[in-house]
Amino acid sequence: MRIWHDGVLVDPALVRIAPDDRGFTFGDGVFETIRVLDGRPMHAGRHFGRLRQGAGLLGIPVAFDDRVLLEAVLAVIAETGTRQGSVRVTLSRGPAPRGIATPPSVTPTLLVAAQDGAVSQAPVRLIVARTTRRNEFSPLSTIKCANYLDSVLARREAEAKGMDDALLLNTAGLVAESTTATLLARFDGRLRTPRLVDGALPGIARGLLLETGLVSECRIAPDRLAHAETLLLCNSLGVRQVASLDRSPVPALPDLVARLSAVLETEPP
Amino acid sequence: MRIWHDGVLVDPALVRIAPDDRGFTFGDGVFETIRVLDGRPMHAGRHFGRLRQGAGLLGIPVAFDDRVLLEAVLAVIAETGTRQGSVRVTLSRGPAPRGIATPPSVTPTLLVAAQDGAVSQAPVRLIVARTTRRNEFSPLSTIKCANYLDSVLARREAEAKGMDDALLLNTAGLVAESTTATLLARFDGRLRTPRLVDGALPGIARGLLLETGLVSECRIAPDRLAHAETLLLCNSLGVRQVASLDRSPVPALPDLVARLSAVLETEPP
Repeated sequence: MRIWHDGVLVDPALVRIAPDDRGFTFGDGVFETIRVLDGRPMHAGRHFGRLRQGAGLLGIPVAFDDRVLLEAVLAVIAETGTRQGSVRVTLSRGPAPRGIATPPSVTPTLLVAAQDGAVSQAPVRLIVARTTRRNEFSPLSTIKCANYLDSVLARREAEAKGMDDALLLNTAGLVAESTTATLLARFDGRLRTPRLVDGALPGIARGLLLETGLVSECRIAPDRLAHAETLLLCNSLGVRQVASLDRSPVPALPDLVARLSAVLETEPP
Repeated sequence: MRIWHDGVLVDPALVRIAPDDRGFTFGDGVFETIRVLDGRPMHAGRHFGRLRQGAGLLGIPVAFDDRVLLEAVLAVIAETGTRQGSVRVTLSRGPAPRGIATPPSVTPTLLVAAQDGAVSQAPVRLIVARTTRRNEFSPLSTIKCANYLDSVLARREAEAKGMDDALLLNTAGLVAESTTATLLARFDGRLRTPRLVDGALPGIARGLLLETGLVSECRIAPDRLAHAETLLLCNSLGVRQVASLDRSPVPALPDLVARLSAVLETEPP
């Protein structure tokens, strides 16, 4: 098993992140998690586009074009023999002197690593997080950056309560998303998902489902969720049924999960 | 020059942060910046206390007691011959498998590194950041964690405007702090600083000044700042005069800066 590190395939045990890498000192970076299905990376071009958008917001240069990034992803999939799993592409600002000022010239760190093994698709016992809120006032809510501690806190809260995942509300008290997935809620036969302005991350799976017209955006107050016909979570790794919310059972709609999964598992021509 | 890494003094070029260290993948860690004055670390015990509090919130175990931490700080100061400068103590959750769930057993990474050379004490040209807001709803606002991208964005905004630093407002529009320092504003002869509930980080310098009674907390709307008798920034590295706010000059009170600096440069018995 090898990792792609700044253009070279190397043994992970030999990959060295410097102690002054801004990814380590400030979480100063972006990343993507790309699903690998039957050995193929899904929607890689969309992931690269979002990575570039996030890097652009932070002012981190991306030294490689999409063709090289795709070659890197394919190389780590081949090296690791990954059939079902994921590839994480991580870009950090790289080493820098002390302080948060961003140096005019940096050498960003770019890593591509595969993770073999399908992710659980089991139904999710969900809570509404009380510990923290998602900051819809920050442009960071619109990119997939390496500042993930609000999600870490909410996930720890869920696990401390014996549950699997947590919904984060935004500072206005509206539903934003779960710690690592987009929420889909069915009301009156229609699937809805929180708006970007409410702090939802523009997920790749979310975008694909919105484009099909199967899902539309709206503001969602948490007390409405008890009346939903079903609740689902989706991200690049798949669609999962929500089994319960704050210990109240949620109706399952397996046909709907299958239909949405089929959309995500189809690479558009 | 050497770094203290998990109990051993090593050449920084040999310090290897693993690519799956949660500090690198999610900014999952805490840190402290301790001032070194005439070769002595200032208020080290308070810094260690805050580090432990932050680690406690995140659930990261700290394997070393304060005596060992102090020995590490003194060792890197001696190794580097630092007379005026700072020491950064960084604790991350350490390596972990993919995903944000926190493994029950982790091996945290602890680094102690000195930075020789006094930090600039020049007057600061300040702006009010428009790019982003500080999330006072998150308990992360109460700890010094490695999720620093909102401050990075605000600092980049200041620098793009030819300025030095930026004030972050909270989501309610009240002043929280600057990207790396506590704001002090004098009104009617009294020094005020934003409250913790408004998103101010519980800074070590801030705490010392509050304890002397020279400063007290209050809510501060940004439009009040134009009427302040002076504005100052303080953090563990010192007190700085604000020269201007959004290009409007701010009156300087050098005697006040000297008096506050003297408090911070005195180690209580």
